[in-house]
Amino acid sequence: MTRPPGAFTTATSVTRGDIPEHEEAAVYHAELVAGWDILGNANGGYLMALAARALTDHTGRPQPASLTAHFLTPGTPGPLRIEVATLRSGRRFATARALMRTDEGRPVLAVLGTFGDPGAAESPSETGPGLVDASPPELPPVDDCIPSAPPGTTPEAAPGFMNKVDLRLHPDDAGFREGQPSGRARIRGWFRFPDEEPVDEVGLLCALDAFPPTVFNAELPVNWVPTLEFTGHIRCRPAPGWLACEFTTRIVTAGFLEEDGLIWDSRGAPVAQSRQLALVPRS
Amino acid sequence: MTRPPGAFTTATSVTRGDIPEHEEAAVYHAELVAGWDILGNANGGYLMALAARALTDHTGRPQPASLTAHFLTPGTPGPLRIEVATLRSGRRFATARALMRTDEGRPVLAVLGTFGDPGAAESPSETGPGLVDASPPELPPVDDCIPSAPPGTTPEAAPGFMNKVDLRLHPDDAGFREGQPSGRARIRGWFRFPDEEPVDEVGLLCALDAFPPTVFNAELPVNWVPTLEFTGHIRCRPAPGWLACEFTTRIVTAGFLEEDGLIWDSRGAPVAQSRQLALVPRS
Repeated sequence: MTRPPGAFTTATSVTRGDIPEHEEAAVYHAELVAGWDILGNANGGYLMALAARALTDHTGRPQPASLTAHFLTPGTPGPLRIEVATLRSGRRFATARALMRTDEGRPVLAVLGTFGDPGAAESPSETGPGLVDASPPELPPVDDCIPSAPPGTTPEAAPGFMNKVDLRLHPDDAGFREGQPSGRARIRGWFRFPDEEPVDEVGLLCALDAFPPTVFNAELPVNWVPTLEFTGHIRCRPAPGWLACEFTTRIVTAGFLEEDGLIWDSRGAPVAQSRQLALVPRS
Repeated sequence: MTRPPGAFTTATSVTRGDIPEHEEAAVYHAELVAGWDILGNANGGYLMALAARALTDHTGRPQPASLTAHFLTPGTPGPLRIEVATLRSGRRFATARALMRTDEGRPVLAVLGTFGDPGAAESPSETGPGLVDASPPELPPVDDCIPSAPPGTTPEAAPGFMNKVDLRLHPDDAGFREGQPSGRARIRGWFRFPDEEPVDEVGLLCALDAFPPTVFNAELPVNWVPTLEFTGHIRCRPAPGWLACEFTTRIVTAGFLEEDGLIWDSRGAPVAQSRQLALVPRS
């Protein structure tokens, strides 16, 4: 029996347009689905996943080994067009770019990525030499963590996107929501989709940008950190189950901060990394 | 008295072509100068700097706040064309992309970046809230560190690029060259240009990709780590003087490794960060 498509797969589906601009270029059509927003603006990970669906289809390579997105204007519900072009197609990898626009032509997201096909390698240890100088975050069991949107939460209390993902925050990192930041620019927690749809390589991009900003746990006068640029590295498809996630920020200077993410799967393998550059507006 | 242009500025000069493709696009011409290579292939930071010169000129914004490059094919000496297009131009930042090709049309480098104009802010602490949860690397004085290309080194002993930059490696991290890796995937050292040309925002991109691979200090059977993708974040123009640089790798799995860079200027301010994704070929 085939599993029906999950909510994430459905919300990130794209359709290739009929008329390619030239051999290596194409236009994809998509619908930015309402409900994947934070206070009206589409979540960045959701936008990246839409672009990644177009690019993985266009290149024929399922794995966004490295994908960079620059956020141009907010995404709002409605039809989108995603202009894609392959820049190089090699034996193991293809590099391609995308520009996502609203139907009226407003640019929303610019993407550049290299895509691969991990093929037969099912386990990260199967492929060449290895080194892991890091550990999964120490997280309490899922049921002892703090849901970002407890069942029955009103839309006023939890943004739409927080009902599309199932986040469980480490209790030590969740106090910022009641005005009690931990004092360290770090957020740790569990991630899955609420319908338990398996997280694929594109789903990891969503997970990497799903958590509240780390800087909310720093004792700084910052309540809004718009992302300028996000880069995700996808090592391999995760094993089924909850993902253990950790996000940290080390340097807030010159009006910028970086935020680094690292995700581990249920077999304890590191499966994805991210770094983003965000603006730190003066309060 | 105006300082004559330094070797780095000269080697990264670009010329805007006459005929823009359309309003937001243009073509720049450049010369990939011989001598900026490692064993015949142009250094990646040098290629990125060439693209960044075209993009900062085209956007009119001097600071590559975030610049991502994907390496398509090796760069070899000769004429280049750099096709650039601005995707969004806002009040504080402009986002633009570039595709660098050889004169024969072979794609060499794809770039996506957001560029700003830091304007009057001379010091990173002048702009909004701040946090630095990191320290400059503990480096011995410059003269006690190990030059990557001692004066009089033959081209056989030191690749061309190593004569274009002045690297001084931490003695504890330099043993890999004699078959004595430190055991930790880390490289620390000082950086400047040999003619003491001041390092500008684009020069920082060169510094971020100038050091030997961290993984040479890990005890792994790896002697070649081609970069797939590199992202640099430039916080601000460094103060004059030597730059203190640290590069680390935490995770080598699934045929990939990440390498993170952090550069501090002579006043002890963090001025640039990088992360790259490289391939780890089976030996």
